[in-house]
Amino acid sequence: MAATVQDMIMLLGDSITQGGWEPHGFAQQLAYVYNRKLDVINRGMSGYNTEWIIPVLEQCFAKKNERTNLPNIRLLTIWLGANDAAQLPTRQHVPLDKYRANLRTLVRTVTSPDSPRYSPEARVLLLTPPPMSETMWARRQAAKVPPRMLDRKFDVTKAYAEAVREVAGELGVHVVDVWTAIWERADEKEERLAEYLSDGLHLTENGYKVVFEILMKAITTHFPEMDPDKLQPVFSYFDQIDDDDPRSSLQRRDAFGI
Amino acid sequence: MAATVQDMIMLLGDSITQGGWEPHGFAQQLAYVYNRKLDVINRGMSGYNTEWIIPVLEQCFAKKNERTNLPNIRLLTIWLGANDAAQLPTRQHVPLDKYRANLRTLVRTVTSPDSPRYSPEARVLLLTPPPMSETMWARRQAAKVPPRMLDRKFDVTKAYAEAVREVAGELGVHVVDVWTAIWERADEKEERLAEYLSDGLHLTENGYKVVFEILMKAITTHFPEMDPDKLQPVFSYFDQIDDDDPRSSLQRRDAFGI
Repeated sequence: MAATVQDMIMLLGDSITQGGWEPHGFAQQLAYVYNRKLDVINRGMSGYNTEWIIPVLEQCFAKKNERTNLPNIRLLTIWLGANDAAQLPTRQHVPLDKYRANLRTLVRTVTSPDSPRYSPEARVLLLTPPPMSETMWARRQAAKVPPRMLDRKFDVTKAYAEAVREVAGELGVHVVDVWTAIWERADEKEERLAEYLSDGLHLTENGYKVVFEILMKAITTHFPEMDPDKLQPVFSYFDQIDDDDPRSSLQRRDAFGI
Repeated sequence: MAATVQDMIMLLGDSITQGGWEPHGFAQQLAYVYNRKLDVINRGMSGYNTEWIIPVLEQCFAKKNERTNLPNIRLLTIWLGANDAAQLPTRQHVPLDKYRANLRTLVRTVTSPDSPRYSPEARVLLLTPPPMSETMWARRQAAKVPPRMLDRKFDVTKAYAEAVREVAGELGVHVVDVWTAIWERADEKEERLAEYLSDGLHLTENGYKVVFEILMKAITTHFPEMDPDKLQPVFSYFDQIDDDDPRSSLQRRDAFGI
């Protein structure tokens, strides 16, 4: 069984998080820059909304009496809304007020001292869903067999992104505002979203590059101790291994122990 | 703290394993195809040889009395030799006989019932080091400040790759023969290695694509139960969530439990 040698970054979300393991996806890029320092664990579940992800998060965070030997989660990203914002009768739809309540539940599961899963060492970032393109998504839906109707709207996803910012402000959690960053880079023109969205909903490589860029900016600004350049590798660089006593110099260290 | 919800694939090695988190690297590709089924943990350490990686492996596998709550390692890849094969006075050099002995120690740490870290559920694959290009590596060494001498030879690395095959045969462990696969794809011509090697030693995207291809072939041939297409996601596909009782259908499952 795997002994704990590194703490973790956990990515919680829907298909846009799940796709983070694509080449240039934000999970791949995080794993690359945090290599030998923090492990990256992807808990993105395609199609999930905030309602369904609550029991997932509960199962991914250990309760106080079940923590023996387990790694700390140093950073949790919570990134949902693209499916919650789907329109009825799509069963993934979660009404806006319920979406806000679910985001609060997700954050408090980790940050509230009353929670059995309270994890004061875990930094939390809330990400807004990306802007969606009705034109692109309508085309994608029509191409499915059987064809489907357009089930998402630009303005609705925009309102869900706004709700993330509101809840984050209310709870004192930092936001990584993917919606605004991509919309501004697209010069606020729907036709320019094709550079960042593959099908009107999911991200291209360029979309993930924007996410990684603003995520790293949020980390280094709000949690400077988590800047990967300020962490040390858990196992020494090879040129620091002591030839006379290699075993001692190969004892694992705390990545944050510089 | 992170509760265990998925078992793991652990990648043990040197810089060529560490670089597996690059876009199209073999770690990224494994994480992508095993998403929601098995987590991928990279324990590649740039510059390490088999001698230095032994204490690392020992710290990465839990002893029998320290396993509470921890995830199983379902697959361990052991991929070293590129540094062991460096020539004296390079301090990474490990003589060929010692290299063979170290590979045996690494494998037996996991597979021997006498080992405190015996893990019968862990499948083990030994990878051969890639062929190296003296021309490319000499150029790279000369460009360093101060310039360095060529410290690796094509024929020596070839002998270390052969040693991996011998030890694997002796121990009954399967081999992923990176050396042969890349050398054959390069039509056994050193000048064609540039498609697979970035600097004469490390892999390009195309090099990693070959590795991923033959690694997946080894998995599906020798351990068909680990074929990612035969595993189920630990958390249900969203269209299988029960609207009447979502919590029950969102209980985590064994990926191998189909």
